[in-house]
Amino acid sequence: MKVPEIILIQSLHKPGSLARVLTVIGEAGLTVEGLRQVRRDYQSTTWEITIEPDDPRETDDLLAALEKLDNAKVLGRSDRVFDRHRGGKIEMKSRMEISSIERLRDLYTPGVARVCLAIHENPSLARTFTGLANSVAVITNGTAILGLGDIGPVAGMPVMEGKAALFAELVGISAVPILINEKDPAKLIEIIAAIAPSFGAIQLEDIRAPECFEIEQALIERLDRPVMHDDQHCTAIVVLAALLGATKRSGMKLTDCVVGQIGLGAAGLGICDLLIKYGVKGTLGADLNPEAQQRLARMGGTPMDLAGVMANADVIVATTGVKGLIKPSMVRPGQVILALSNPEPEIEPEKALAAGARFATDGKVVNNVLGFPGVFRGALDANASRITDAMLIAAAETLASLAQGDSLVPDPLDRNVHAQVAAAVKESALGLVLGHAGI
Amino acid sequence: MKVPEIILIQSLHKPGSLARVLTVIGEAGLTVEGLRQVRRDYQSTTWEITIEPDDPRETDDLLAALEKLDNAKVLGRSDRVFDRHRGGKIEMKSRMEISSIERLRDLYTPGVARVCLAIHENPSLARTFTGLANSVAVITNGTAILGLGDIGPVAGMPVMEGKAALFAELVGISAVPILINEKDPAKLIEIIAAIAPSFGAIQLEDIRAPECFEIEQALIERLDRPVMHDDQHCTAIVVLAALLGATKRSGMKLTDCVVGQIGLGAAGLGICDLLIKYGVKGTLGADLNPEAQQRLARMGGTPMDLAGVMANADVIVATTGVKGLIKPSMVRPGQVILALSNPEPEIEPEKALAAGARFATDGKVVNNVLGFPGVFRGALDANASRITDAMLIAAAETLASLAQGDSLVPDPLDRNVHAQVAAAVKESALGLVLGHAGI
Repeated sequence: MKVPEIILIQSLHKPGSLARVLTVIGEAGLTVEGLRQVRRDYQSTTWEITIEPDDPRETDDLLAALEKLDNAKVLGRSDRVFDRHRGGKIEMKSRMEISSIERLRDLYTPGVARVCLAIHENPSLARTFTGLANSVAVITNGTAILGLGDIGPVAGMPVMEGKAALFAELVGISAVPILINEKDPAKLIEIIAAIAPSFGAIQLEDIRAPECFEIEQALIERLDRPVMHDDQHCTAIVVLAALLGATKRSGMKLTDCVVGQIGLGAAGLGICDLLIKYGVKGTLGADLNPEAQQRLARMGGTPMDLAGVMANADVIVATTGVKGLIKPSMVRPGQVILALSNPEPEIEPEKALAAGARFATDGKVVNNVLGFPGVFRGALDANASRITDAMLIAAAETLASLAQGDSLVPDPLDRNVHAQVAAAVKESALGLVLGHAGI
Repeated sequence: MKVPEIILIQSLHKPGSLARVLTVIGEAGLTVEGLRQVRRDYQSTTWEITIEPDDPRETDDLLAALEKLDNAKVLGRSDRVFDRHRGGKIEMKSRMEISSIERLRDLYTPGVARVCLAIHENPSLARTFTGLANSVAVITNGTAILGLGDIGPVAGMPVMEGKAALFAELVGISAVPILINEKDPAKLIEIIAAIAPSFGAIQLEDIRAPECFEIEQALIERLDRPVMHDDQHCTAIVVLAALLGATKRSGMKLTDCVVGQIGLGAAGLGICDLLIKYGVKGTLGADLNPEAQQRLARMGGTPMDLAGVMANADVIVATTGVKGLIKPSMVRPGQVILALSNPEPEIEPEKALAAGARFATDGKVVNNVLGFPGVFRGALDANASRITDAMLIAAAETLASLAQGDSLVPDPLDRNVHAQVAAAVKESALGLVLGHAGI
């Protein structure tokens, strides 16, 4: 997995000096992922350049090469990413300043006793007089953190805090990271069910397949509040949104298409599930793992090998993590291809187009930050007891409708996008709109 | 249990009109717990009056009586306490605004991967690059919420949110309420241990005796981070502080005293434990429950009946919840008496003094808000793996030293008090000061 590195370079104000820096970076086989002017002095400018090497040692080699330049000076590596993580990314705050004895006695003892008794007599008042209706637990056991694998729950904390920070910033939800040191699905289910009363909803996060399917399903059946495994369903929402856009601009209708999913992990199976519920003409799927293929068949999809999927699908979605898996010779003319693995896609869009694809893109378009905030905001606002397929589809259709210009999906930092997704999910939960046919 | 009610009354600007309102309240057998001028108009003033009836029906009767007054008009009951609970008392926030793609990529993917990998390689970095070193779980199973008993975890949420709000306001700790639907101690221990990696420390809250002892002890032994049952130890800290003040101003030295504890619930046994560790001359205890008496004996205290304790102790602490339990005839001349049950003490201070006590007070002085914030702040700042008796004693001694004027303990809303308690606890944890003899 590539991780970003930020280097600081000071270049003299001479023609070509920055170009030479970037040339050295290019010659090292690295792409400039970010470039920011930090400071402009009388004779020089300081630049912060983000690269994403496969291995931190590549950065060492690059810095050695940059040291040899005449018109630029390496100032060092920036710790910006780490600096921004210092002390953690979230904090619990009191919603009211507690500055007087009167407030202390209202918010704590003795006043709080009245509120406790009222909730004891009528438990539904907890929605009004506590934060329960606005809270989500972001729960992991650390078995599939990003693309990093089973690095354990504590090393996954920065991801969980990141989700919580995004919940707070984008939709005003109070999200709490919960790290659970337990891999056994049955025990994990018990633990999560036991703490579930603490939260309005539960987002399962970075739990590995196939355990994630059993864990999510058991909790959905057992709990009276929304439970969603992000990895399965959030990617699916954003992929469905992207497919709606990609097929539309290709002059196709998604419900008339056979979709081929390559890679049947948590994300791939979540995508197949949602596409089947959405009502595509057929869902083919390829994976080397027979258990994953069986799971697809139970959902109503058709397992095939890679060649079969490529030969028979109108639309291809790939989430394998295997660079270059799809050869240009496999592309069927007229196909729509989303090769989503990051940072290297299964086939580069240009190659897919050259091989006859009608439309092709890679994983940079699909950011699941577009999905989870609005879905949980809408589910909580509707007081929904679960997240239905119709709610996920409503989220995807809203995202597709808000895409602007060349983009398949809208800006993930646009608060209005999340508000509109939340509104659509809430409406769907409340049954205010007619669902898509077959939902 | 008494719970506050707030009534709104408009009195005409005529001599005696407010006095008549207060007279009616007094005749109803109620004390004015709070009185605030809400609004002054040309001819009348609106008052917000707080009372604490035993039963809400007393308020109905009072309002009916007040309706008959000529110079005052009942406007109704105020929902101030409920209004202040609306939407809950706490919220999780992002520590940084996420307003640019650069920040999104640093705080979330791809940047976050570097931090995850760094923590995976060196787990101690989690203290620096996540909020773990600043977080406390406030955990209850709802079996002993305030004096209300087993009303269940969800009805206990307002108390847990109150603790979390106080943690945030007083010492800047991010505290998270965790409600667990489980009464079996063994299962509760497993659940808490499983989620413990999510937090820097664990405060057990309002869990009933005797299960609380077993649960706390098992978690202290099992976990590598501070665990404290608030009900046992926080009251003990504040009582020890009050006893240091009360004995000092009575010309006595606490270590020369035999202390008698009346009531051996969670709080009473916590007090005995801390006094024994502090090194008082003897610890006597009375409770009707033989199991509680045995527990005291195992701690090193001496179980007795009520009469025996009253006859043999220099200092009496009562936490029974039984109004008037201590008769004036039981008071031994020269005793120091803290009758702490709220709202009605075991013996009123005036009666105790009249019966020959050297010093007497009731429970209004003891607010455990003085204890938990500074103790956890200090323990987290020291990266302590557990909370020791020396740390609790350091907190109590600091509180005693900061009391001003007639008060036995300082103002619970004074942030400086909590900072000083935290500093003393941290020093104790780091072993920077010589402990009290015998610790």
